[in-house]
Amino acid sequence: MTLSNLDIINECDSFPYPYTDPALYNASLSTYYTLRIPDCNHDLGYMLPSVATVFDNVPNWSLDHDARTLTLTAGTNASERSAAVHQTLLALRQTGHFKVLDKWRDELYGVYGPGRELLFSVERSASPLFGIVTYGVHMNAYVRGKDGELKIWVPRRARTKQTYGGMLDNCVAGGIAVGETALECLVRECAEEASLPEDIVRERVKSVGCVTYFHIRTEKAGGETGLMQPECQYVYDIELPEDVVPKPGDDEVEEFYLWGVEEVREALGKGEFKPNCGLVMVDYFVRMGELNAENEGDLIEICARLHRRLEFPTL
Amino acid sequence: MTLSNLDIINECDSFPYPYTDPALYNASLSTYYTLRIPDCNHDLGYMLPSVATVFDNVPNWSLDHDARTLTLTAGTNASERSAAVHQTLLALRQTGHFKVLDKWRDELYGVYGPGRELLFSVERSASPLFGIVTYGVHMNAYVRGKDGELKIWVPRRARTKQTYGGMLDNCVAGGIAVGETALECLVRECAEEASLPEDIVRERVKSVGCVTYFHIRTEKAGGETGLMQPECQYVYDIELPEDVVPKPGDDEVEEFYLWGVEEVREALGKGEFKPNCGLVMVDYFVRMGELNAENEGDLIEICARLHRRLEFPTL
Repeated sequence: MTLSNLDIINECDSFPYPYTDPALYNASLSTYYTLRIPDCNHDLGYMLPSVATVFDNVPNWSLDHDARTLTLTAGTNASERSAAVHQTLLALRQTGHFKVLDKWRDELYGVYGPGRELLFSVERSASPLFGIVTYGVHMNAYVRGKDGELKIWVPRRARTKQTYGGMLDNCVAGGIAVGETALECLVRECAEEASLPEDIVRERVKSVGCVTYFHIRTEKAGGETGLMQPECQYVYDIELPEDVVPKPGDDEVEEFYLWGVEEVREALGKGEFKPNCGLVMVDYFVRMGELNAENEGDLIEICARLHRRLEFPTL
Repeated sequence: MTLSNLDIINECDSFPYPYTDPALYNASLSTYYTLRIPDCNHDLGYMLPSVATVFDNVPNWSLDHDARTLTLTAGTNASERSAAVHQTLLALRQTGHFKVLDKWRDELYGVYGPGRELLFSVERSASPLFGIVTYGVHMNAYVRGKDGELKIWVPRRARTKQTYGGMLDNCVAGGIAVGETALECLVRECAEEASLPEDIVRERVKSVGCVTYFHIRTEKAGGETGLMQPECQYVYDIELPEDVVPKPGDDEVEEFYLWGVEEVREALGKGEFKPNCGLVMVDYFVRMGELNAENEGDLIEICARLHRRLEFPTL
């Protein structure tokens, strides 16, 4: 069965919506615990009860079963809160409580407040436990042949990668560490993942907005299932000259293909893309006019779903 | 005071959101009446109580004050329902009940069900009374100077126009009549409003997705204030050769300006654009990279707000 473009979005943006699925949405919200800090009247993430209850009686955390909140009580600034979170996560990693922590990355993601201020940072592999918003960059690289035909660079992820091994990806993608800007992250990842020279990237890359979605992790992601991942990806396009060829720069990519639109759409339809990369590719096809009002009946829903308004403060 | 890009979005997408403004959102929903037809379990629009109650005891309509619904009871197909709506609206126009009907257009807009089937059509000027979703096309036209500098064609609306007279607009924009496709509508409006030849439009125009927002009408729109207008605009970009110059083709446009990015941004900041045209211009600047993660702190919210998920079935 061929996946529709909306199916591809559904696979990535899988958290229910209050308008279209109020029963499931309300059931979800009445089950989850929310991550909080004192004196900030905003939910910072949604947590499974099975995850939140692990923090019961852990120093620096306060669990309220009636309000279904997990509050980080330590610290009065980002540095103190971050240290407390780090200490807890190191301990949880040692005790082997959560499978996702086996993929410890030694990279910090930021959690932001309503004024976009950094509240604290979290080890990357732990972010789905807290259900916090994470940020990344995704870049579509394409070539215009002499006949004007559009060709798209599509990497295949290394089969040895722990998450989504062997699946197709966007040309370059990566997570934004705390303190890094989106563009710095992109330039770094272009060198690491695709061996693209910094000067070519800076000269040619074009920011084209961002996509936001709310993913519920499945077994494909590895680790616990059902964890919540609201994400924001800053999206960039780059038109490359025909003689600039992306090459794997680390062990994350097996091979780059240069495919026409039809080949990419076929692979999308077969579900060969990592879910959020499939979503970014659909966004690219919308912006390039390949998907339009005349040929895509779901266009309005697709455009809305590519830009979900998240329930949490964002960067 | 200069408006931020988010201010420009706020002016257009002014209906409250459940996440960020739950009190106002719930108060709104507990006040409005919803438009319904029998055997279709979906709200088709939100109506002010002052509007809905006018339909009390009108043949073909059933008003339920407890459920706060106005149901069109006539007909079992689109043609029969449309005829009943038209009959009611003609009568309301004659009695002078609603100021918006003074601008009767003799154009029909479609109201669609959850399977995108046409349920019935409504005279254009009456659509904000019912709060139904309406559809249109907006096209940004631009020129790349020899130095690569981006210039944008910006029309000023005729000062005699009843709505938003004298304000700035997108190069071409118009409403999609029932039975018309987005592209047909665009080609027609390009000829009517900007004298752009059909062959140039068809060859060069690029579909780039759609924007959706939920507007509450103010006195600037003319007619009753507080009426609800959820809208979807299919967006197109066209790069024009320097020698193709848009010219007013009817009495809707006073003059076309060819402005650089800074001039357009200045006019946006002064609130000189018609609200939904300002929103489309912000979307254009996002897609062109003028607004990006490095220079627009509200980028994530802007992208989400440009693509609101509406509460109603859409085309």
